[in-house]
Amino acid sequence: MTDFAQLQIIKNGHVTSPKGFKAGGTHCGLRRKKVDFGWLYSEVPATVAGVYTQNAFQAAPLHVTKESIAVEDKLQMVVVNSANANACTGEIGMANAYETRKLVAERIGVSEHLVAVASTGVIGVQLPMEKLTKGIEQIDLDQSVTADFEQAILTTDTVTKYVAVEVEIEGKVITLGGACKGSGMIHPNMATMLAYITTDANVEAESLQTALKTATNETFNMITVDGDCSTNDTVLAFANGMNMQTELTTDHPEWHKFQDAFTLISQLLAKKIAKDGEGATKLVEVNVKQAESTDSARKIAKAIIGSNLVKTAIYGADPNWGRVICAVGYSNQPIDPSKVTVYLGDIKVVENGLPADFSEEEGKEYLMSENVSVTVELKMGDGEATAWGCDLTYDYVKINASYRT
Amino acid sequence: MTDFAQLQIIKNGHVTSPKGFKAGGTHCGLRRKKVDFGWLYSEVPATVAGVYTQNAFQAAPLHVTKESIAVEDKLQMVVVNSANANACTGEIGMANAYETRKLVAERIGVSEHLVAVASTGVIGVQLPMEKLTKGIEQIDLDQSVTADFEQAILTTDTVTKYVAVEVEIEGKVITLGGACKGSGMIHPNMATMLAYITTDANVEAESLQTALKTATNETFNMITVDGDCSTNDTVLAFANGMNMQTELTTDHPEWHKFQDAFTLISQLLAKKIAKDGEGATKLVEVNVKQAESTDSARKIAKAIIGSNLVKTAIYGADPNWGRVICAVGYSNQPIDPSKVTVYLGDIKVVENGLPADFSEEEGKEYLMSENVSVTVELKMGDGEATAWGCDLTYDYVKINASYRT
Repeated sequence: MTDFAQLQIIKNGHVTSPKGFKAGGTHCGLRRKKVDFGWLYSEVPATVAGVYTQNAFQAAPLHVTKESIAVEDKLQMVVVNSANANACTGEIGMANAYETRKLVAERIGVSEHLVAVASTGVIGVQLPMEKLTKGIEQIDLDQSVTADFEQAILTTDTVTKYVAVEVEIEGKVITLGGACKGSGMIHPNMATMLAYITTDANVEAESLQTALKTATNETFNMITVDGDCSTNDTVLAFANGMNMQTELTTDHPEWHKFQDAFTLISQLLAKKIAKDGEGATKLVEVNVKQAESTDSARKIAKAIIGSNLVKTAIYGADPNWGRVICAVGYSNQPIDPSKVTVYLGDIKVVENGLPADFSEEEGKEYLMSENVSVTVELKMGDGEATAWGCDLTYDYVKINASYRT
Repeated sequence: MTDFAQLQIIKNGHVTSPKGFKAGGTHCGLRRKKVDFGWLYSEVPATVAGVYTQNAFQAAPLHVTKESIAVEDKLQMVVVNSANANACTGEIGMANAYETRKLVAERIGVSEHLVAVASTGVIGVQLPMEKLTKGIEQIDLDQSVTADFEQAILTTDTVTKYVAVEVEIEGKVITLGGACKGSGMIHPNMATMLAYITTDANVEAESLQTALKTATNETFNMITVDGDCSTNDTVLAFANGMNMQTELTTDHPEWHKFQDAFTLISQLLAKKIAKDGEGATKLVEVNVKQAESTDSARKIAKAIIGSNLVKTAIYGADPNWGRVICAVGYSNQPIDPSKVTVYLGDIKVVENGLPADFSEEEGKEYLMSENVSVTVELKMGDGEATAWGCDLTYDYVKINASYRT
């Protein structure tokens, strides 16, 4: 299990808190006014790991990014545009992604394979390359304004999302930072958003991929807003080694500290996405305990956090635990109904499959909090998992009934 | 494939249109004013088939009903109460379901095993047996008021749902009727609601079960409102043989006519449920064609019809086909993105994975209809499926944020 106690969250830490990272953003005209084109840069080529959406319609920039990384598992730059996903755009879309990469490489004077590209926004519209070119021409590596990058990557998000932590390895303090976007189209089991995690540690490529996969399974893959999975979503991790000589691998005696820091960064970012879910008023955390296995616990947690009926009940502060039980029941996992116990926060509402004696008023009051937790104990084994999501509100419908207008 | 052309839908037909069926309902006090206790009766013991929710928390009445049917595959009576699901009610709940069955059997003078019981409503509250007993005492088989039965079984439904069709077999006209309830907690792959299908044909038990399973897979299991599956849902089919001597089996040369009539009844009821989905303003039909297999087509159709983003786009009359493509992409089925074509009604919006040239205005206007169809062609094989659902609206949130208050 992860142990976050020895980690230090940096107050007002950003994706550029680790040594040698810079970021910026500009308005190139994809949106009316908002900053819409961002870049994240490492002063030296950084070792890179990535996870990508499992959607069969992977957007053009993902292909180009993977191609870049395949060359030597290193990147120095990623550029991101919002407002347009460059997905379902065929050969022209691919050509535009390649062109973007080429122009960026030229602009900053690095090899093309050290550049990754990302897009997020509406599907099926070609990138307006004139505008994008204008954005690329405005990249100035001497003008790092991280807040602009964090703003540029947003779509329907209402806040920028960033975090950084410190961890001591071999007596040396290294830093990890992160930034992400994601508000709709968020669902487990996918690389479900754009997220960028940076560190000034020196991490061997395969080990970095392990850290990312491990963290993603426990964090980004455990959040859901609406059950939909995007064509574009990507998590990239960059380790530039600028603050540490030794190369970290999974065999290193202090590897677990690095993994914990990585998982914490991922969890904090994932929770920010869940809390900023489209129309959300509450962050919901679902804990499943004593499941037959970790996998089973995850599936049950996801069934609960993904239930529209649970989500609307929480929105309405209705302690209607029947909907939680119902989601457990259709998760298709090994359970014994007569052993299931459910808590809303600390309030026991179901004990061994039967209604517990609790005050409806107290339950209602608890569900009015901004942070709500639901805990389910199954007495089937020692599998555990946590999932995060949000309530389903009028505003979710409003945002998505008029996304493009 | 089903051929509905030779079938005659009976104008204003009901679950009691087949010969020898009666139904009624009364107000026993589970709800404030609405009729809340209903009964459906066959003058002679009818051969019965059933499908039940796959939720692990099956409610008490399902156990008792299955026990009744297990004795000789026959029933003469089913009683249904709304407002209370008798689910997660433990041994007391089971005792109450048995007691209900016993009292009903005594009241109408038949063996207990010819009586089935059903409940729908809130989970985790014990049935108030005094009230139920009052309802049972009001059963009067000489006073058949079918509309009261169809009303009594409703929960958040806004309309009663009923239909009847005629089909000629061996030169004789037989009738099939049906009634159902269902509005929330509707999802594919479950016996997803309460539905009762009746016929005055004489059908062998195993063949009736085949007819029910076949129809359910194509109809009740292909509708979704919100992805949640209830603890109580049940479809029962009754064949009392009062209008036909020959026993129908799957080997009968005209069996396909009976199966078609059964499937049509099921489809018409299923569509009524989808259209009356909580908060729905539109009936949405998704057709998937040229999939690798029927199973694959069904999964893709369900992914589309179940997508909150597709549902909100249709609510907002936004021809945002990217969300349809996206759902196809995460359905985890064999597809080739460059072969996917999508229509909204007759308007081609995607051709071979790329945006088609269509008028947004025309698309928007089409999506304002009360009945909306989405068709996806995959060019992978000859698998076909249709799914039904509805849009996701403010009212869905409203209804479910305050269901119990």
